[in-house]
Amino acid sequence: MSTDRLIYLPLGGAGEIGMNCYVYGYGPKDAERLIVVDLGVAFPDMDGTPGVDLIFADIEWLEDRADRLDGIFITHAHEDHVGAVGHLWSRLRAPVYCRPFTGNIARRKMEEQGQPEDEVRIVQPWPEAVQAGPFRVSFLPMSHSIPETSALVIDSPAGRVVHSGDFKLDETPLVGEPFNPDLWAEVARPGVRALVCDSTNVMSPNPGRSEATLGPALEQLVASSAGMVVATTFASNVARVRTLAQAGKAAGRSVVLLGRAMRRMVTAAVDTGVLQDFPATVPVEDCGQIPRENLMLIVTGSQGERRAASAQLARGKYLGVEMKEGDLFLFSSKTIPGNERDVLRIINALSERGVDVVDDSAGIYHVSGHANRPDLQRMHRLMTPQFLIPMHGEHRHLREHVKLGAESGIKGVLAPNGTMVDLAGNAPRVVDYVDTGRTYLDGTVQIGAMDGVVRDRIRMALNGQIVITLIMDENDEPLGEPWCEIMGLPKVGRSRAPLTDVLEHDLDQFLGRADDDVLVDDDKLTEGLRRAARNTANAEIGRKPEVTVVISRLVV
Amino acid sequence: MSTDRLIYLPLGGAGEIGMNCYVYGYGPKDAERLIVVDLGVAFPDMDGTPGVDLIFADIEWLEDRADRLDGIFITHAHEDHVGAVGHLWSRLRAPVYCRPFTGNIARRKMEEQGQPEDEVRIVQPWPEAVQAGPFRVSFLPMSHSIPETSALVIDSPAGRVVHSGDFKLDETPLVGEPFNPDLWAEVARPGVRALVCDSTNVMSPNPGRSEATLGPALEQLVASSAGMVVATTFASNVARVRTLAQAGKAAGRSVVLLGRAMRRMVTAAVDTGVLQDFPATVPVEDCGQIPRENLMLIVTGSQGERRAASAQLARGKYLGVEMKEGDLFLFSSKTIPGNERDVLRIINALSERGVDVVDDSAGIYHVSGHANRPDLQRMHRLMTPQFLIPMHGEHRHLREHVKLGAESGIKGVLAPNGTMVDLAGNAPRVVDYVDTGRTYLDGTVQIGAMDGVVRDRIRMALNGQIVITLIMDENDEPLGEPWCEIMGLPKVGRSRAPLTDVLEHDLDQFLGRADDDVLVDDDKLTEGLRRAARNTANAEIGRKPEVTVVISRLVV
Repeated sequence: MSTDRLIYLPLGGAGEIGMNCYVYGYGPKDAERLIVVDLGVAFPDMDGTPGVDLIFADIEWLEDRADRLDGIFITHAHEDHVGAVGHLWSRLRAPVYCRPFTGNIARRKMEEQGQPEDEVRIVQPWPEAVQAGPFRVSFLPMSHSIPETSALVIDSPAGRVVHSGDFKLDETPLVGEPFNPDLWAEVARPGVRALVCDSTNVMSPNPGRSEATLGPALEQLVASSAGMVVATTFASNVARVRTLAQAGKAAGRSVVLLGRAMRRMVTAAVDTGVLQDFPATVPVEDCGQIPRENLMLIVTGSQGERRAASAQLARGKYLGVEMKEGDLFLFSSKTIPGNERDVLRIINALSERGVDVVDDSAGIYHVSGHANRPDLQRMHRLMTPQFLIPMHGEHRHLREHVKLGAESGIKGVLAPNGTMVDLAGNAPRVVDYVDTGRTYLDGTVQIGAMDGVVRDRIRMALNGQIVITLIMDENDEPLGEPWCEIMGLPKVGRSRAPLTDVLEHDLDQFLGRADDDVLVDDDKLTEGLRRAARNTANAEIGRKPEVTVVISRLVV
Repeated sequence: MSTDRLIYLPLGGAGEIGMNCYVYGYGPKDAERLIVVDLGVAFPDMDGTPGVDLIFADIEWLEDRADRLDGIFITHAHEDHVGAVGHLWSRLRAPVYCRPFTGNIARRKMEEQGQPEDEVRIVQPWPEAVQAGPFRVSFLPMSHSIPETSALVIDSPAGRVVHSGDFKLDETPLVGEPFNPDLWAEVARPGVRALVCDSTNVMSPNPGRSEATLGPALEQLVASSAGMVVATTFASNVARVRTLAQAGKAAGRSVVLLGRAMRRMVTAAVDTGVLQDFPATVPVEDCGQIPRENLMLIVTGSQGERRAASAQLARGKYLGVEMKEGDLFLFSSKTIPGNERDVLRIINALSERGVDVVDDSAGIYHVSGHANRPDLQRMHRLMTPQFLIPMHGEHRHLREHVKLGAESGIKGVLAPNGTMVDLAGNAPRVVDYVDTGRTYLDGTVQIGAMDGVVRDRIRMALNGQIVITLIMDENDEPLGEPWCEIMGLPKVGRSRAPLTDVLEHDLDQFLGRADDDVLVDDDKLTEGLRRAARNTANAEIGRKPEVTVVISRLVV
């Protein structure tokens, strides 16, 4: 009997929605040949990752085994699947496989990071396949909220794994390929060992709705507005952008695309042939010549991003366009948890301008790109895999998805990031736990989430900062008083004197009392000054700040 | 004709949900006698107010006129209405009027801040009234999500104003007085000049549901659980706490209250007689002796607060209690926008322990404490005020509420914080805009939101920090190299050498090139070092940190 293993190891995406990175391997233990599916990013927030630019899965495990890596497969062009490819490629150096639209985006990401674009190899869909070591991998067209999304059919000597990627069951997605049940049945026919499956919407009880259901409501809304209409959605949702543009056109409006990502995505879709009938647009510079009731802007910033077009328009005039009383702003999007405050800030700013805001609370101006609970069940039954491995979800989603699979009698595997599962035997077996985590792109540097850099920033933000500088003379006596600078702290506290004065006074007292063995020892002196400063601050302003002590010793 | 004015001036609460603070005045221009309704807090977040403890309305306008202030009226005991009373009272020094349960809470807040408790005066409800200068003010019982909530009937020589406070139309609230339409009709009979009205749920299209509708579903849920049940809700929602406790008792479970606020609120409600039939509880120390399927815990932390009982239980053993596979955790609450991430963190941590989590997504385990759109309309029609002034809402709520009033033919006034409206004439007139804002309680110090303290903290969190110390000798020449410390920055950048080494090298070069007129001038030297450090950091790590420069000059 073969002792070769078929391993599944999520490094990202199984424990969060975002940052997708899944490793598959086949071969003898610890000598498996590997492929990786998706290299995505997660987005930072002020709460936990202030100042960070992007978040990647920690790929150290994979980097250490890069000589065994036969390919990087990208399922689709969403940032949480392709966003890290330019940043991480040089640590992996394997060919990147994807379909043309995704490739267009992936190549730009490689180029932006100075990586070789021609390592991105364009692949045609099923039944074409890429041989990558022991794996034969096909891109199976599937509907989602971006063109050319694909599941992966991953064939190995130990059987077939279907990696769903992100998907919904939409037979009329308007742009991109529809869900084709016959095709999926064909894939299922030889038997599926494991279905590794999107879990995003496992909590949504009703069947998902098709992109095609939105047109009439959007057209009516745009037509009924007396002023300018501005709509926002994810730029990558090319089908939605097209539906919105068509609604504008149907209402006799000139359509303007605003925001770099919006224009870039539409261009990529046109260039790669996935979008062929996009209405003519006018440049934003022409808006001034067009009556506002004849304008329809489609803009970036559906999540309230502060630099995006929607936020700019909420704040005031942007590229010559200004929203006014009687205009309409439409969120044809859902707010991702955590972005509520930013979105509400925009809505309130628009309200102050007298702009009417319509969002998806009525449930008719947006549909999700992910399969809901009944859709997932349909997929389970269509594939009838031996094992179901939920991915693309927080822990609560993965757990619920395992339960859902059990309803159809399918053995589920709860495998959060770092869980290595061997799928080769009759039952899935957890064979290892790999240290996983997050890598931060911080400016131009990649740092580990646990390096302490961001922790220190959070501490400065929560506690404020005191810098103490002290000069010690040749006899190890203080030369003058210690000097204090404060950052992010109230200037005056309980005693009504400047906080720096009180600090300097108390530190001077401390130095006067300090023994010689403290004065000659930088560590003891630093610790003593730090403690004294924190105590004074606590008495004065009721908090204990971060303290940095710089001691300079003059030498003879 | 009298030239006396009847003014309405929101200092907080009309532009946000929270931080309520409304001023009313009557008398000659700029000599009006004043009362203030509610002194509430808002809560800080890492996004905009890192390290801040509480947020109050900026009451400077009122403080400057404290000699004209005849009373502080607190509508109910929610933090966003009463939370600032202890912190701000010493700046206003007027009697605080409220009903007994609210008074119990208000007195503790005064005590905690060392203010005189006996300035809190307990008032009986309508038709009893307090004479406060030219105003006669009555507390009109109303249903909400905390006991003894009241609207205020504010009579002045220029007519009657009804200040709704927070409310819902619940004729069976279980704890606290029901909405009594007859009572409100009686108040409306003499004519209402202005209805100043809660706007929180103006976007919610369906009629609100009564607290009494929850019992059966909660009982069924608790009874059907095989393990321990832990439920969380706002501690102040005494009716809900009671319903949850009764569901536990009905299922034969011992009821445990966990979290300081939970026990405090129930005690206050019992002590003031508003809660008379609360089931017996057992102390948490006894949990060890009770089979887990016979336990029902009601805990604090429905918003994911990191130190509350719910978060502690999600992280592990807390006070001897540990949640396990098969237990149930219930959020009988809604997540306030902005708290989603914290709540999801708890849900995922519970999921990792195998705990089943039920929230309000099914819409059967929680009802709102605020009047929905049709309820507001009913209130408008019941009161038929001359003017409707929406309050307690973000700008989008106020604006929508004005529109809703117009549907009933009522003239609405959109008056965000700082808008002074004179209600004495035939039409409401905006007579002034007052500078308003926010005051932060930061440790023990009250600072202005615009003082720059928090801005500096945010900058340190986003950009990191470099501290440069330099000693200049008696001849205005650098004594040794400049010394750099970094906080919240990667230790190594592009050149693979320690960032501090690269900085010190470049700053030394800068000093070598610097002219004498720079070396003798602290400002020029600081600016030069700052710029050089930022440029080096940008080249090395791709970001421009905050820079603090400390120059010490040795004197002869």
